[in-house]
Amino acid sequence: MTQRPALLITPRHLGPLSAFLESSYDVYRLWEGPPTEAAPDIRVVITAGEYPLGHELLEKLPNLSLVACFTAGFEGIDLDWCRANNIPVTHAPNVNHEDVADHAMGLIIGSRRNIVSGDRLMRKGEWTPELRLLTPSLRHQKLGIVGLGAIGQAVARRAEAFGMEVSWWGPRSKDVKWPRTESLMELASTCDILVVACRADDSNRHLVGADVIKALGPHGLLVNVSRGQLVDESALIEALKSGQLGAAALDVFEVEPTPAEQWAGVPNLVITPHTGGATSEAVQGMLMLLLQNLSAHFAGEALITPV
Amino acid sequence: MTQRPALLITPRHLGPLSAFLESSYDVYRLWEGPPTEAAPDIRVVITAGEYPLGHELLEKLPNLSLVACFTAGFEGIDLDWCRANNIPVTHAPNVNHEDVADHAMGLIIGSRRNIVSGDRLMRKGEWTPELRLLTPSLRHQKLGIVGLGAIGQAVARRAEAFGMEVSWWGPRSKDVKWPRTESLMELASTCDILVVACRADDSNRHLVGADVIKALGPHGLLVNVSRGQLVDESALIEALKSGQLGAAALDVFEVEPTPAEQWAGVPNLVITPHTGGATSEAVQGMLMLLLQNLSAHFAGEALITPV
Repeated sequence: MTQRPALLITPRHLGPLSAFLESSYDVYRLWEGPPTEAAPDIRVVITAGEYPLGHELLEKLPNLSLVACFTAGFEGIDLDWCRANNIPVTHAPNVNHEDVADHAMGLIIGSRRNIVSGDRLMRKGEWTPELRLLTPSLRHQKLGIVGLGAIGQAVARRAEAFGMEVSWWGPRSKDVKWPRTESLMELASTCDILVVACRADDSNRHLVGADVIKALGPHGLLVNVSRGQLVDESALIEALKSGQLGAAALDVFEVEPTPAEQWAGVPNLVITPHTGGATSEAVQGMLMLLLQNLSAHFAGEALITPV
Repeated sequence: MTQRPALLITPRHLGPLSAFLESSYDVYRLWEGPPTEAAPDIRVVITAGEYPLGHELLEKLPNLSLVACFTAGFEGIDLDWCRANNIPVTHAPNVNHEDVADHAMGLIIGSRRNIVSGDRLMRKGEWTPELRLLTPSLRHQKLGIVGLGAIGQAVARRAEAFGMEVSWWGPRSKDVKWPRTESLMELASTCDILVVACRADDSNRHLVGADVIKALGPHGLLVNVSRGQLVDESALIEALKSGQLGAAALDVFEVEPTPAEQWAGVPNLVITPHTGGATSEAVQGMLMLLLQNLSAHFAGEALITPV
């Protein structure tokens, strides 16, 4: 083949990658129209974990030889199909976990200490001498972490500096200093703040459902910096409206961008547009891994970070 | 005297203290009218540091024997007059410094990682697939702390858990592990984030003026959790509007409550209504110290926490 390898970028928000790829590759963008004529040329699909990448698209690419996921998570990719068709998959692990943990702490403090709602109140001119806005101290609050991977451990280290008491739950025990509860329900019912930091896959959709939310309770705070599908949003909204749950702070949603109307009038809520890992440094690190994996793939060398 | 001692609470926002004092004392509230007839009965004035308590009021109380400040800071009190008239002053040190440090970290993350502005954007329905909100990583950011007292050291310990690099400036060197710069200007010109955490007094009004703000620069973030008088608000607003300063996050203001109009249209700003130390635990601790100081005073014992 004398022509340059062709790549297909699937999620629109990865469009800016084109600038870094076009010097070495022909780049197609799915949102500009399905690449019907170019289908035989496309060797690599570039995707992001939260983008649903089913086999319907992949099957139409007869010379596909790699699925390169820009993000750490890869829950949107039909891994069974890839495995069955000998298509390797790469991703970008351990690049942005410190940034996501920073964001989780920002959500915890921003919600618990009324920073987001305080800013809103001030801009409305509602700060009066009579205003009372006492909040609980973070010190001695019990922080429960769902999934003690790279993000979860980074959250735990930060929380300790605030005097919070850390415990966690995950399906497998780990050699760490923080105690693991027997179940997610036990974690939710014994902690003040529950941070969802586990990997999402088909098996744990709505892991945090109505029962876990109720166990967290009317003084509890639910934080999600992982993936929206892990939390049952309908149950969450109902619990916030009824007061069964104290507060929630979310960076991720079942559908992204999440419709603003869905959250209108929901009390004690902080929401951010999936920016937990969106730092310049993290994006540079992910871009570096993507380019290295592509180079290795086309040179016939071992992939740097295969799934 | 068979009658109960009388106290005068001066700032309106301390009104809720009445409930805890009325079982043992007669309580007057200045905002309900000056206690002209009761003036000879009043033995103690209860105040808060940010409230300007000049000698004009104190001189009208012939039997005044104590000024009890509810807060840690006591910059509003005319200490010279108190000293000259042998009136002891108490305050509440080392009760809420951990909470204030938590709030400072919340302001840093809330501003730097676009949590406050991200929440506002989402509620306006402005999250689109094309949205780019990359921010710098907190890791390796240089944090400069102005005043390394109890609050400053608590901020430094937390910042280290985020991988930030801490330095500080204050008028006197201290036996701490963090490096001290030669001057405030050196600190401002070498750091990314400047946190004001020093005590305010007559000598350091507008310590952070136009020159320090300019040295912090167009990518810098100014955080104030100490007292509003330490920062020149006019210079700050001008620098934010012109882009000479990157961002600011303020919990304290020159006048409190600060007028909302003053901040309308000022970009890259997070503001909270002086809630840094406003936790239930801290208020309980301050109340405890107030009650203990009052008991000791009327029993003729040594004051617990004199200034």
